[in-house]
Amino acid sequence: MVTEDEAMRRAVALAVRGLGTTSPNPVVGCILLDPAGEVAGEGFHAYAGGPHAEIVALAQAGERARGGTCMVSLEPCNHTGRTGPCSQALINAGVRRVVIAVDDPTPVASGGAATLRAAGVEVITGVRRADAELGNVAWLTAVRRGRPYVTWKFAATLDGRSAAADGTSQWISSAESRADVHVLRSTVDAIVAGVGTVVADDPQLTVRDLRDGTLAIKQPMRVVVDSSGRTPADARVRDAAAPTWIVTTAESGAGPDGRVDLSALLTELFARGVRNVLLEGGPTLAGAFLAAGLIDRVIGYVAPKLLGAGRTALLDAGIGTITDAVDLNFLEIAQIGGDLRFTATLRPKESHPTAPPATLKKEERTF
Amino acid sequence: MVTEDEAMRRAVALAVRGLGTTSPNPVVGCILLDPAGEVAGEGFHAYAGGPHAEIVALAQAGERARGGTCMVSLEPCNHTGRTGPCSQALINAGVRRVVIAVDDPTPVASGGAATLRAAGVEVITGVRRADAELGNVAWLTAVRRGRPYVTWKFAATLDGRSAAADGTSQWISSAESRADVHVLRSTVDAIVAGVGTVVADDPQLTVRDLRDGTLAIKQPMRVVVDSSGRTPADARVRDAAAPTWIVTTAESGAGPDGRVDLSALLTELFARGVRNVLLEGGPTLAGAFLAAGLIDRVIGYVAPKLLGAGRTALLDAGIGTITDAVDLNFLEIAQIGGDLRFTATLRPKESHPTAPPATLKKEERTF
Repeated sequence: MVTEDEAMRRAVALAVRGLGTTSPNPVVGCILLDPAGEVAGEGFHAYAGGPHAEIVALAQAGERARGGTCMVSLEPCNHTGRTGPCSQALINAGVRRVVIAVDDPTPVASGGAATLRAAGVEVITGVRRADAELGNVAWLTAVRRGRPYVTWKFAATLDGRSAAADGTSQWISSAESRADVHVLRSTVDAIVAGVGTVVADDPQLTVRDLRDGTLAIKQPMRVVVDSSGRTPADARVRDAAAPTWIVTTAESGAGPDGRVDLSALLTELFARGVRNVLLEGGPTLAGAFLAAGLIDRVIGYVAPKLLGAGRTALLDAGIGTITDAVDLNFLEIAQIGGDLRFTATLRPKESHPTAPPATLKKEERTF
Repeated sequence: MVTEDEAMRRAVALAVRGLGTTSPNPVVGCILLDPAGEVAGEGFHAYAGGPHAEIVALAQAGERARGGTCMVSLEPCNHTGRTGPCSQALINAGVRRVVIAVDDPTPVASGGAATLRAAGVEVITGVRRADAELGNVAWLTAVRRGRPYVTWKFAATLDGRSAAADGTSQWISSAESRADVHVLRSTVDAIVAGVGTVVADDPQLTVRDLRDGTLAIKQPMRVVVDSSGRTPADARVRDAAAPTWIVTTAESGAGPDGRVDLSALLTELFARGVRNVLLEGGPTLAGAFLAAGLIDRVIGYVAPKLLGAGRTALLDAGIGTITDAVDLNFLEIAQIGGDLRFTATLRPKESHPTAPPATLKKEERTF
């Protein structure tokens, strides 16, 4: 027998396995407990159009679901999309109790809890809500705002340089960090880069196994922000490895600065089903996203190197004085190979500045 | 009864309490165990001219030292300086066995182990050597090289800026980080800054309690690198709070670039008894120290902020291309208030690049 808290922890962990393949759907994980509290089935939503987590778990559990409890990381859907409503499937299976971590904020899919309650099923919400919100942060943020969740990723030295004075930058970060970036890319729907980066570095912007170059089956869309259409005809981002969208002002409209309107670009990406975007530079594009308030999270790979000259990771964010600096909170600090990787989220402007506990304890050692 | 390993761990911890007040002497800690293995006395070297760690511990132990074991973080001295030789004091007290973490590398003080052995005392060396070396790293490095150990400290944003575009920088880092810097200052013999920083920020460069401004009893020497003598007459570094040395080329000689010869400066500081130097900027002076190979350790306070413009922490280190970047190893990563503090040591050029374990585990979490 497992506790419901432990079962929900497992449901959230299962959900996260769907990151990168479920958009425009959320990630969802589900554990079915039989009346004795034993795990009878488990599942996660693996890809858009495929079965929902509850349906996978119900299929595994069979008759053991009757009288049992469904632990699910997101409110069961109530609508018939590419699949039928999960709320009805749970009722039909005779589930007695449904425990939900996070309510579904979308008008089209929500209402599952109400349907379940109307059918006499006991419904509890909010168990491990924070964990489940974190796992689904991209989708939840995207549907609440109507634009994709944007993570800006960069690599730099200890003194904040992303390239040396002569422009060389391969490789600032370690092999382990570069492999980690490919894992990160595999969790998003689109990778965005500026044409300056494309011209300078000619990146492929795909998800690959760095040992042998094998491409992952599922590739994020490549988006090149290219106001005046300068992407070379033979640029690697134009190859057949993944879909690519070269965004010009002619196509998407210009903002007040005459360049691609980034807010309109994100709205269009949302309309195309993109919920999770990885922004990979360069510094000017990152500065434009930041200045427009369009960055939600920053992941930095900091290599234990010093340069003292060369390109910085961020430029022209419209900040002139220290009190206007953009504030973040560290969410996680990790060591990747010899590098340090930090994950930080932008602090909401309206809230009182507080630093939540990160995953790292203060060290008292002094030498 | 304590194990000898545990007793040595304690001796090393005691030693570190002397950091900042023992130069030109090393820090040393000592635990005396009686014949039954119980702690009979403990001590550390608290200030130059004061009793050595062994003498403090022997005074506590009294007759219980006879037939006992002395655990000491550095080889007992063999010479009569401001105090008598510790080796003879241990022999006189009837200590049977002496366990040493690190040998004394200085010709004048070494030989203690040989004297003890000649008197029939059992001598073991190398117990917890790495820990003891780390605690004494500044002194050991200084006496081996004939110049002080140099730690470069800086504060910056996530994107590597030490000030905003308009020059404002107070306060990039948190109150906790600023207090931590004063603890760091309390462990060194001298604080070095460039005249540019003195003119721009007018820092006092003292060790203070930041809550009420109270000055610490022991203050490091303030050293201003000021090639052409531009330090204002009313600069705060000239106040009576601590000794100050304004170093001009007229006084210390010029290097090939016409500025203060930094290597000669460090040699002179060593001659004045300085073993441990904290370099506090600005970026050009830090670059000059780095270019001259005179930085041993870097401590960075990274605030979770983004600026996108403004002064970087390091300039003009003479590095033009990525393969010439200076390589370091992370020694420690800690959270100080809302900031991240890293400690990294310069990787020796001749050795094979390897990343030793830092105090942080790799995190596998992905979201």
